[in-house]
Amino acid sequence: MTITITAFERSPDGGKGLARDTRVRWALEEVGQPYDVRPVSFRAMKEPAHRALHPFGQIPTYEEGDLALFETGAIVFHIAERHAGLLPDDANARARAITWMFAALNTVEPAILELATARLLEGDKPWSKERLPLVEDRVRDRLKQLSARLGSADWLDGGFSAGDLMMVSVLLRLKSSGILDGYPNLAAYVARSEARPAYKRAFDAQLAVHTGKPPTG
Amino acid sequence: MTITITAFERSPDGGKGLARDTRVRWALEEVGQPYDVRPVSFRAMKEPAHRALHPFGQIPTYEEGDLALFETGAIVFHIAERHAGLLPDDANARARAITWMFAALNTVEPAILELATARLLEGDKPWSKERLPLVEDRVRDRLKQLSARLGSADWLDGGFSAGDLMMVSVLLRLKSSGILDGYPNLAAYVARSEARPAYKRAFDAQLAVHTGKPPTG
Repeated sequence: MTITITAFERSPDGGKGLARDTRVRWALEEVGQPYDVRPVSFRAMKEPAHRALHPFGQIPTYEEGDLALFETGAIVFHIAERHAGLLPDDANARARAITWMFAALNTVEPAILELATARLLEGDKPWSKERLPLVEDRVRDRLKQLSARLGSADWLDGGFSAGDLMMVSVLLRLKSSGILDGYPNLAAYVARSEARPAYKRAFDAQLAVHTGKPPTG
Repeated sequence: MTITITAFERSPDGGKGLARDTRVRWALEEVGQPYDVRPVSFRAMKEPAHRALHPFGQIPTYEEGDLALFETGAIVFHIAERHAGLLPDDANARARAITWMFAALNTVEPAILELATARLLEGDKPWSKERLPLVEDRVRDRLKQLSARLGSADWLDGGFSAGDLMMVSVLLRLKSSGILDGYPNLAAYVARSEARPAYKRAFDAQLAVHTGKPPTG
C-alpha cells in the first residue's frame, strides 16, 4: 500500500530539515519504505480538508490505505512497529526504546519548544533579553541530565532505535543556537545520527522540496 | 509479577492529583492491575539511585521483574499494550488511540506546561503580568482545535482509550485556571473522565499518600 505523507509546501526553515516531516522521512528511510509526499500550503493547512486529517492544522500526516494518522511520535512509532530496524525484538529493550521516544517528546522537547517560542514569537518583547537566559537554563538542565545518561555510549540504549531518532530530531532544533556545544557527547550523538545514510536521504529529500532540485543521492 | 511505581513522598500539589503518578495509577486501575507504591523524597529523587531509574530525576517510574521504565507516556503505553481495556483491538483504531497519546503529550501539554512555568517559576518577574495573556492564548489555540475535533462525542475516537486517559490528564492541569470553562465540551469530557470508577480509585489512592489516611473506596 502506498504511504503518503504531507510536508510544508514552503518550509519556514527553508530546508534546514527542522520541519517535522523530516522525522517521518528519516524513519521511513531507516526501514526502507518508499513514500509519496503531498506538499501543503500554509493556507491549506488551516482549511477543513487538512483539519480532517490533522486536528491541529499541522504537518506531517500519514496515509496508508484506510489509515490516516497525525502526530510525528505516533507516525514514527507506527512505522517502527510494522517494519524491522527501529525497535529491538527483545520485549524489555523495545519498551525502553519507546520510553526514549516519549522522553524526547514530553521531557526534552517542551523546554526546547519554549526556547523557540521565546525567540520566534517573543523576540521583540521588552522582556526578551532578560528572560532568554532563564529559558536557556531550563534547556541546559535537561541536556545535562541527558548527557549524563548517554555518557560515552553511541546510542541511548543498546543499538540505534526510534528512541534515538526522536531524541536526535529534538536536539537538532538546538544546532544553530550553539547550546549543544556545551555537551560534547550530545553534539557527537547528533553528528553520528546525521551521518547515517537514512538521515542523509531524508534530509536531501526535504531539501529538494525547497530548492526545487531532485535529491542527488 | 509485582508492579512497583514511585510517587512523590510529599506532592507539590498536596494531593490534587496533578502529579504524574496519578496517570499511571489511573491506567493500572482501568486494566485492573494491583501495584505497590514507593514514595520518594525530593532529595532522593535527585540522587544516583533514583537517577539510575529515571535519568531526569522525576517520578513516576515503573518496575516489574527485570523491567524498569520511566516517562509517563511510555509507562501508560506499556500497561495498555499488555492488558485489555485501554487500546482497541482493531489495528487502525489502535494506531489512532496511540496518536492521541502522543498528541496529548507533545502538542497539547507543552503549551500547558509553559503556562505552569509562567505562573510558578516566573510569576514574580516584572514581565509576568503582561506576558501571561500571550501564554494563555497559546493554550486556548490548542483547546479550540481540540474542542472542534471532539465535538459532541464522548471520547476522542470511539470508546475510551489510553489516548483519552492521557489527554484528560493533561487537561486536568488547567482545571484550577478556569480556562477550560471556555470550552464546555472539553470541561464535560474531563468531568466524564473524573467520574470513571478507575479514575476515582487512582485519585483517592494518591490523595491517601498525602492525608496519611487509607482510601475509603
